[in-house]
Amino acid sequence: MKKIGIVGGTGYTGVELMRLLAHHPDVEVVAMTSRGEAGRRVDDLYPSLRGHTDLVFSEPGDADLAGCDLVFFATPNGIAMQEAPALLEQGVRVVDLAADYRLKDLDVWSQWYGMTHASPEWVEQAVYGLPELYRDEIRGAQLVANPGCHVTATTLAVLPLMGLDWVDHGQIVADTKSGASGAGRSAAVHTLLAEAGESVRTYAAAGHRHQPEIRQTLTTIAEREIGLTFVPHLVPMVRGIESTVYLPLQGEPGENVQRLYERYYAEEPFVDVMPPNSHPETRSVRGNNICRMAVHRPLDGPMLVVSSVIDNLVKGAAGQAVQNMNLMLGCDEPAGLELVALSP
Amino acid sequence: MKKIGIVGGTGYTGVELMRLLAHHPDVEVVAMTSRGEAGRRVDDLYPSLRGHTDLVFSEPGDADLAGCDLVFFATPNGIAMQEAPALLEQGVRVVDLAADYRLKDLDVWSQWYGMTHASPEWVEQAVYGLPELYRDEIRGAQLVANPGCHVTATTLAVLPLMGLDWVDHGQIVADTKSGASGAGRSAAVHTLLAEAGESVRTYAAAGHRHQPEIRQTLTTIAEREIGLTFVPHLVPMVRGIESTVYLPLQGEPGENVQRLYERYYAEEPFVDVMPPNSHPETRSVRGNNICRMAVHRPLDGPMLVVSSVIDNLVKGAAGQAVQNMNLMLGCDEPAGLELVALSP
Amino acid sequence: MKKIGIVGGTGYTGVELMRLLAHHPDVEVVAMTSRGEAGRRVDDLYPSLRGHTDLVFSEPGDADLAGCDLVFFATPNGIAMQEAPALLEQGVRVVDLAADYRLKDLDVWSQWYGMTHASPEWVEQAVYGLPELYRDEIRGAQLVANPGCHVTATTLAVLPLMGLDWVDHGQIVADTKSGASGAGRSAAVHTLLAEAGESVRTYAAAGHRHQPEIRQTLTTIAEREIGLTFVPHLVPMVRGIESTVYLPLQGEPGENVQRLYERYYAEEPFVDVMPPNSHPETRSVRGNNICRMAVHRPLDGPMLVVSSVIDNLVKGAAGQAVQNMNLMLGCDEPAGLELVALSP
Amino acid sequence: MKKIGIVGGTGYTGVELMRLLAHHPDVEVVAMTSRGEAGRRVDDLYPSLRGHTDLVFSEPGDADLAGCDLVFFATPNGIAMQEAPALLEQGVRVVDLAADYRLKDLDVWSQWYGMTHASPEWVEQAVYGLPELYRDEIRGAQLVANPGCHVTATTLAVLPLMGLDWVDHGQIVADTKSGASGAGRSAAVHTLLAEAGESVRTYAAAGHRHQPEIRQTLTTIAEREIGLTFVPHLVPMVRGIESTVYLPLQGEPGENVQRLYERYYAEEPFVDVMPPNSHPETRSVRGNNICRMAVHRPLDGPMLVVSSVIDNLVKGAAGQAVQNMNLMLGCDEPAGLELVALSP
Repeated sequence: MKKIGIVGGTGYTGVELMRLLAHHPDVEVVAMTSRGEAGRRVDDLYPSLRGHTDLVFSEPGDADLAGCDLVFFATPNGIAMQEAPALLEQGVRVVDLAADYRLKDLDVWSQWYGMTHASPEWVEQAVYGLPELYRDEIRGAQLVANPGCHVTATTLAVLPLMGLDWVDHGQIVADTKSGASGAGRSAAVHTLLAEAGESVRTYAAAGHRHQPEIRQTLTTIAEREIGLTFVPHLVPMVRGIESTVYLPLQGEPGENVQRLYERYYAEEPFVDVMPPNSHPETRSVRGNNICRMAVHRPLDGPMLVVSSVIDNLVKGAAGQAVQNMNLMLGCDEPAGLELVALSP
Repeated sequence: MKKIGIVGGTGYTGVELMRLLAHHPDVEVVAMTSRGEAGRRVDDLYPSLRGHTDLVFSEPGDADLAGCDLVFFATPNGIAMQEAPALLEQGVRVVDLAADYRLKDLDVWSQWYGMTHASPEWVEQAVYGLPELYRDEIRGAQLVANPGCHVTATTLAVLPLMGLDWVDHGQIVADTKSGASGAGRSAAVHTLLAEAGESVRTYAAAGHRHQPEIRQTLTTIAEREIGLTFVPHLVPMVRGIESTVYLPLQGEPGENVQRLYERYYAEEPFVDVMPPNSHPETRSVRGNNICRMAVHRPLDGPMLVVSSVIDNLVKGAAGQAVQNMNLMLGCDEPAGLELVALSP
Repeated sequence: MKKIGIVGGTGYTGVELMRLLAHHPDVEVVAMTSRGEAGRRVDDLYPSLRGHTDLVFSEPGDADLAGCDLVFFATPNGIAMQEAPALLEQGVRVVDLAADYRLKDLDVWSQWYGMTHASPEWVEQAVYGLPELYRDEIRGAQLVANPGCHVTATTLAVLPLMGLDWVDHGQIVADTKSGASGAGRSAAVHTLLAEAGESVRTYAAAGHRHQPEIRQTLTTIAEREIGLTFVPHLVPMVRGIESTVYLPLQGEPGENVQRLYERYYAEEPFVDVMPPNSHPETRSVRGNNICRMAVHRPLDGPMLVVSSVIDNLVKGAAGQAVQNMNLMLGCDEPAGLELVALSP
Repeated sequence: MKKIGIVGGTGYTGVELMRLLAHHPDVEVVAMTSRGEAGRRVDDLYPSLRGHTDLVFSEPGDADLAGCDLVFFATPNGIAMQEAPALLEQGVRVVDLAADYRLKDLDVWSQWYGMTHASPEWVEQAVYGLPELYRDEIRGAQLVANPGCHVTATTLAVLPLMGLDWVDHGQIVADTKSGASGAGRSAAVHTLLAEAGESVRTYAAAGHRHQPEIRQTLTTIAEREIGLTFVPHLVPMVRGIESTVYLPLQGEPGENVQRLYERYYAEEPFVDVMPPNSHPETRSVRGNNICRMAVHRPLDGPMLVVSSVIDNLVKGAAGQAVQNMNLMLGCDEPAGLELVALSP
């Protein structure tokens, strides 16, 4: 069994990693660190794990992370860039679930995250952890930057269209709807049930950190400038992200778009292109690692509409991290992730 | 007191009309018809009305609707076009909350509603009941077609920009999110709490009836062709619609867009343009007749984003109907509608 | 117009007082204090109040509370007992929405609230603000202790049965279900939507502060010892409390229980005894000051079951406070409270 | 691989059986019948199953149920009693998830279910499928009656106390709170999201079918008369049941109640007695087969309070059915059920 460590295990991505790895055939979580909860049993904080783990949260300094085969950073932005390099230099492989290593342009990164990067040399080496694009690079990577949740739903929704001449890359609109777990497990007013329940609203409409992350990938793949407007919304549910992406056509599609999507993702274990006229529901992927999508051309007009759904804590975070881990450690890619979604 | 009748009072717009009219200073509901519930007390079906009404649902044929000053049709599509003309011919004024008289083009109407229109002569005479556009015409109208809920939120969001040369009218995107009460009080599987709870999805992505209705108004006002992609979403809440509208710029705005909006709606009693950098929440209009909106220009780029929120059952249905009634009967426009939203 | 002050206006009871008083015919809110938000417009914090108030939060020391006719304390427990006496001594009348003056036994109070009382002399003078029991005393009171939310729902549910010989007073069970707004507008983890959404749980099952408050009233009215087990539950909604109370019979009821309830509350403007076989829903009182209830005797067995519902922020807090204010200031008792519940 | 059939697969228990059996090591679902959906792919109705099954719903008459090792009836009440006997006589083993074979007293059954029983001879042979009580009998049973959901949560909560002299068996109160999926996937008004969202209410307060089912088991185990008042509540969530049970003490407990519970359930794979002062949340068992519980003695008074939580569709229906199947077919009891709950 490979040894796995989790740094910052008290948040939702931490418990979700534990859920997914509990029955993984090839790995074992041997350490879970937390500054605030050190000494407390993990299943005392998360009773859903009772019976599945005997782990106790340890102080970051006390855990033998260097003895692990792979360490997940499930920490707030700005921690991994400080603490991951020491492990990386000892040969430990790392998946960072935060944003520290996602953007290649350090100026852009600093502008959006309000910090100077502490380990720019590792930014360069980091592989962006979207297996559908970078599977081979991930296999060999020592450091993987796990994509953001809105980013995953939106990027996968449009990948098959990038670089096609009949798609106008200049005015893409992505309108995403996210459950409240995306805001993390931090005491806050605006995500209280009494505040966010029975209500919908935009947030960061003037600009959100995930916009440059989506643009970076799309620009690379399309090999042209991308104009992208991205507006996230908070909807009153716990889990799930739906991304509706609008792509103007310039001229007629060169081929049947439905078939294009089906072919593009034919071999992907975690992308499901639904049949024509489908409307994916977030609950259809609740708790599993699938990105389900459908493509429409409303009224046969000059716009394509793609709706994609993921579980923000799985394909949008911990599940994709495990998928990356499987690639890095040579496990079967779907190991630990072959769960059926919880629906209803 | 003016006498008011409600045809089809068992649905959500029926009970909402009763709620709003319960303390209206100038009118009194004297008849409420229902085929299915005739003979039953209204407050037995809707206990929230206990203490506010003694009305009993009557058979459509038994109610003295002809003796009313104004009759609301809170019926499914296709009823008012059959039953309203007889009342109209006797001089009763009518507000239809369904779609029968909304579209001027009968071919388009038939295409979307799957029926041949039964009273095309009244379609021509009907005034579209958006007071912000047609206040004077509504005052004199005998028949008012009350706008759809997605339509109201979306149309009001973009009105101030229509016809401006620096706005690209050809690729407008409207992405709306609606609570489940928009689907009405009919036994159905897909809007069960167990189906629609904790989940988000698009519906009618390939084309929705409200698209031509929005287009009709915008085309009229802008005096040019409108390209509009409209995709509604069902979100897990009871009330509320949020519409996020994306309008590409062609060239720089000719004036400060925030001030343009504030000026455009300065005199409107039920439209609230929020300060810069605001994110309207549907709960901020829960139960009242306000449309609250905010305008953004993300990253100072070539796109305007307007987010507007309404209560789908109030400004999106019964409240706007009462606003129209007030205009038609010469009451104060805000009478019965001066409620503070229920928040949290 | 009478002048009203609100101390601690940033919480949910503060905004709810503002909502209810916005259109009150006889009073005007002239000051709203907040340590944390002083200088900020009230409607900036609560956009639902936009258009209904121009008030700005003031520092507690800066507001002319002594010039008010009545001041509401919408503060955490332990503040009113410190700050109310100075106002009371200047002749200002006070309604405390917190628990400072609810329990007459100071030892019991200290045991449950973990503080030594700062103004025990006022505890004695305070009138318990349940109008259904103490209407006359409230009229003349200078200080009113507004009841707790679980307390109001539970106490009203059983009042008609207290002191009857055929009711076993020794083993009453009250099982309440509350929405998350009852926990207030404070940053916290356990009431995040992502924690409290889609889940139900007990809390304080070993003993809750509202138990001695209910017991105090029932003991007084029944003139005998009360055995009460009270367990509150958190359910995934914003507003509302349902209390199901189980009272064992000892012998046959001396009269028809339904009629007993109807007679007991016949004159009460804010208590609604529903017809036999009813099941009150919390939504039927959403936003208004009604306590709706139904009484059952399951399988004609030896137990009475009363289900009562209130809006925890209205009849359970701000609404009852306004009802008390109306009595104290000689206004019509229902002034400002004649709202129809928001349903659906 | 053993062959499994599911009769009536379109409801929530049908899809839940599919979810749980999808990765079961020893069995394979070979037939799923539906009158209304025959000919349609199962994963077309339930997109969450896409990629996990190729099954097509078949007409009941067309499926080779007689060739199955075991058949689940996931049908409405009154179907299994008609159709199961033919299979049973051919040696097929049957688990009925409905109520047809749960009550041994046919008069009581007819009174609550409003039908005359069609196969009374099989009622006698049926084993009640609560493994914690009847594990050995289930192993050898040909027909198992799977318990109701409220029943499972409530019965397991009190089993350790049954028959103890210091427990008053005459006035047990069970107050349960259920998510809306318990009402099934049938078009209905009262469980629409717009009706049941943001609201709590009792139902069947005067008597519910699950009361005699709980009483039957408790009477058998306690070997004395049981007085039980049971009131279910509908709360606004999809899945989960919480049962709070109140048991009066008569005299002091003969032993530490916490330890009594821990010992009683020490060997049970699917019952988790939480530590003292715990408050189980329904989300801690979302999607898995655990019944988690905590026992309290409020204020050290004369009442025990037990709170237990289950997922109504898993331990309350399909999960317990699979647990029974495992026992009947000689599989490992937890096979297919070793899932971690989905939390948050």
